[in-house]
Amino acid sequence: MTNSNFFRPVALEHASRLVNHGPTVLVTSSDGTRRNVMAAAWSMPVEFTPPRIAIVIDKRTYTRELIAASGAFAICIPGAELVDLTYAVGSASGRDLDKFARYNITATPGPELGMPLLETGCAAWLECRLIPESHTEDAYDTCFGEVVAAAADERVFVKGRWSFTGENTALHTIHHLGGGNFVCASNAIQAHPL
Amino acid sequence: MTNSNFFRPVALEHASRLVNHGPTVLVTSSDGTRRNVMAAAWSMPVEFTPPRIAIVIDKRTYTRELIAASGAFAICIPGAELVDLTYAVGSASGRDLDKFARYNITATPGPELGMPLLETGCAAWLECRLIPESHTEDAYDTCFGEVVAAAADERVFVKGRWSFTGENTALHTIHHLGGGNFVCASNAIQAHPL
Repeated sequence: MTNSNFFRPVALEHASRLVNHGPTVLVTSSDGTRRNVMAAAWSMPVEFTPPRIAIVIDKRTYTRELIAASGAFAICIPGAELVDLTYAVGSASGRDLDKFARYNITATPGPELGMPLLETGCAAWLECRLIPESHTEDAYDTCFGEVVAAAADERVFVKGRWSFTGENTALHTIHHLGGGNFVCASNAIQAHPL
Repeated sequence: MTNSNFFRPVALEHASRLVNHGPTVLVTSSDGTRRNVMAAAWSMPVEFTPPRIAIVIDKRTYTRELIAASGAFAICIPGAELVDLTYAVGSASGRDLDKFARYNITATPGPELGMPLLETGCAAWLECRLIPESHTEDAYDTCFGEVVAAAADERVFVKGRWSFTGENTALHTIHHLGGGNFVCASNAIQAHPL
């Protein structure tokens, strides 16, 4: 497993880059006493500055209950080595089991909001304050959040940019196709002017 | 370039799978007379059934003007061979030039809403009816849409599922990291139970 000591702060104006390419993420939440982690394939940035994101979280989930209580959540971006864990925490409810204990997940409290952050095996995280939008939360399960802190593993996010190479494949982001099938962010291409 | 004759309809209950993994897409629009194509990295499904998506389109764009006029848009998913075109149409405004003419883009009218659809070099498309949500359109440039028709190239989307292999790399979806740097959806991994 990768070592969390490689995490470095990401400037907030670069935070949208962490999810710009559509990775499947882990959503962590806590109300101060209880905590949870789930997987989410549906998220996107909506603004660079201030850095804001949207994420779809089913209103029936334990995570939504905890987010409603705290007004906060975090997004942790798993690397390829966490593909089994990502699928596992996306397939069980935190109402039924403590997924941190069950899967031996280590979390550290976020610097701004105290959200549980996963670093081991992850490529990056973003700590977010919920922007209450009751209509979209109800109608589309879509929650908006403002990123208030972010960090990334310096072996794969270098000088404000992702660097996916053959040397860091365990930290390549994963993108869920459905049914436990994922692809990795690999095979970089640089566009050329037409 | 790939041949568009490989496009086959995608059942609407499978349409969310086309964008589940976060590809960068082309947004096409038309008001019946004028038309446009732009790139968008920020989109996601929000519901399986009915199939609904959210996409961020800056309110100052020509595309937003055309969508407001027609209440419709399409999402075309470029394959890796269109990386230069994707970056090009994302870097110029349709107010300044006819991008279809400038880049020699062939489009066919969509079956439900008549939106311009790109097939050559693309892996899939989704024709969408705008769901008017003035607050999120204004506050977050986030537009919601319901997918009313979808199709995909049968060489890369097989029996309702993406199949990215070494045989169809030109149709692998692309995911923008920023500054014209893209990664491809490659290196499939199947998650195993923990």
